[in-house]
Amino acid sequence: MAKSELLHEVRIRLPNHEYAIHIGTHCLSDPQLLTRYVAGKQVLIVSNETVAPLYLDEVQQAFTGFQCNVVILPDGEAHKNQHNLDKIFTSLIEHYHHRDTTLFALGGGVIGDITGFAASTYQRGVRLIQLPTTLLAQVDASVGGKTAINHPLGKNMIGSFYQPHAVIIDLNTLNTLQEREFRAGFAEVIKYGLLEGGEFLESLCGHRSSLSALIAQCCQIKASIVEQDERECGKRALLNLGHTFAHALETYTHYERWLHGEAVAIGLYCAGLLSQQLGHLSAADLETIDQLLEQAKLPRRIPKEVNVTKLQELMSHDKKIISNTLRFVLLKGLGNCYIDSTVTAESLRHTLISALEGE
Amino acid sequence: MAKSELLHEVRIRLPNHEYAIHIGTHCLSDPQLLTRYVAGKQVLIVSNETVAPLYLDEVQQAFTGFQCNVVILPDGEAHKNQHNLDKIFTSLIEHYHHRDTTLFALGGGVIGDITGFAASTYQRGVRLIQLPTTLLAQVDASVGGKTAINHPLGKNMIGSFYQPHAVIIDLNTLNTLQEREFRAGFAEVIKYGLLEGGEFLESLCGHRSSLSALIAQCCQIKASIVEQDERECGKRALLNLGHTFAHALETYTHYERWLHGEAVAIGLYCAGLLSQQLGHLSAADLETIDQLLEQAKLPRRIPKEVNVTKLQELMSHDKKIISNTLRFVLLKGLGNCYIDSTVTAESLRHTLISALEGE
Repeated sequence: MAKSELLHEVRIRLPNHEYAIHIGTHCLSDPQLLTRYVAGKQVLIVSNETVAPLYLDEVQQAFTGFQCNVVILPDGEAHKNQHNLDKIFTSLIEHYHHRDTTLFALGGGVIGDITGFAASTYQRGVRLIQLPTTLLAQVDASVGGKTAINHPLGKNMIGSFYQPHAVIIDLNTLNTLQEREFRAGFAEVIKYGLLEGGEFLESLCGHRSSLSALIAQCCQIKASIVEQDERECGKRALLNLGHTFAHALETYTHYERWLHGEAVAIGLYCAGLLSQQLGHLSAADLETIDQLLEQAKLPRRIPKEVNVTKLQELMSHDKKIISNTLRFVLLKGLGNCYIDSTVTAESLRHTLISALEGE
Repeated sequence: MAKSELLHEVRIRLPNHEYAIHIGTHCLSDPQLLTRYVAGKQVLIVSNETVAPLYLDEVQQAFTGFQCNVVILPDGEAHKNQHNLDKIFTSLIEHYHHRDTTLFALGGGVIGDITGFAASTYQRGVRLIQLPTTLLAQVDASVGGKTAINHPLGKNMIGSFYQPHAVIIDLNTLNTLQEREFRAGFAEVIKYGLLEGGEFLESLCGHRSSLSALIAQCCQIKASIVEQDERECGKRALLNLGHTFAHALETYTHYERWLHGEAVAIGLYCAGLLSQQLGHLSAADLETIDQLLEQAKLPRRIPKEVNVTKLQELMSHDKKIISNTLRFVLLKGLGNCYIDSTVTAESLRHTLISALEGE
């Protein structure tokens, strides 16, 4: 059992709750760190078939002397559903987990979302610790308290705002992450760059920061936004930059063609393109976005076989819509995003067509 | 469309949210009152097969000019489950309800609980108005923000703390309530009497208050407790007086034999008996409890065919247990309740046997 080395700590301070994001190495093999936020003598670890063979054993070792149960779910967004949520509830009830139990989410964004939702609704709320093992979950999904499952009719339709007691990011887990998964996570890093601009964006363009520093900076940007608007009544919606496009693309392809981050990459380009076509963003800034995504080997264009009319219809189902108006996060410049509710169907259609491969 | 007459208003003041409980007559036929807390142009009314034929039409009339959808569920605790929750979600998504939609729960405690849970988790939370039509829901279930559905393995296992935007109590609905339902609701009124003691209990014993005043007083007692402890970390657990027994009795009989309030009535007697057998409550006070329940024509004893060992096992599944210790709300006197975690299995068994019919 190695001692962890903690490199960064980001704190999220909300009116009723404050918690830490620990970023370091060998965190998952540090029993002291893992047990620090457990209140009772019961824990349930939720993981998936990809991550469990790699890290479950070492995490479980921390809970010698505890009642420690495990639920292993199939891997992938398609499994973030009611059926698998119920597997978690059934295990909790069958093993007599009480209100002082603690749930650990060991995996990527899907495991974090579904475990978070289970924690928020089991007996009206029990403790939750996020142990994100993908870059995407480390910089985005595990931070800020959004939990959800998908409904057959729409992504993330059922969920809650529910903050974890801690987020523990073990950088070693990135060593076993598939390169495609890593690149997809980097799309969210680029998103933070476009939101924040300035030095952070420059360091991204110039590849000047260590990975651990990049992750800490992303968490800090997200923490600062969530602190100002936990329940997405205003500013937090900026974090959806690229996501209205991404969700529609994912639904269109039944979550099969792209990883979430890859769809976000296309969405970031589309958001830039729409901003530029509306006259808010310069062609040079759009070019910077395109290059950042290209350097990260991420997709930026909509495949030409996609039916733009159908894609546009799917966007009207997006849950970020308020009162039938489509809301987009657009850019006035790099590091200068805003929410626009005035985009017409015609403008959107024009952008989608321009974003098609080969256009 | 009659103008409502508002007789009482109780306010619940929580750190992040304040709302009103309106108590009056003809509230359900007052469009101004019903639309007052609606933010957008979409509403969904959830009701059941018993209540909808009586009150749905007049409530729907208030929403002329709105998009108004309706979900009618079968009546009864057995239907407070995932399957019916999903009917609500499906209707919301199929009819494109957005984040500014408002859900109305028109019915008793079951409709309030399941609609409240749907509102708390649809798109991570939308507006909720409670329109309780049973005495039990008016004095207890609709107030304070507890929402839940049952899991096949346990009652109220899945839920959330989620406060409504308003509770609107139309006293006229009690005119159509079956007498058995009314009596069952009165068990919760007696519970408040035992928690509060003093003048309120005296007015109950002497039948001196009007029904609307009784309801307002119950709401006020609950409001005051919830304000001090929204998430049941301490004092709010007192509201579970009688309920550890009641839940086990309901599970034992698969929710078929008793209405919730009837099981609570037996539970109140058992809590009194346990308190008396432990030497905390006088025999005279226990007698007062027994008489109050008898006057209200409520059951007080456990039927003799109930297997006490099995009933005791079911109590260990109760979600109010923390760390394997059974916690009971007990009485040191009328109006003087406390939480006791020291009750032994032997004492409990003794009480359950003494509470059997004919003992």
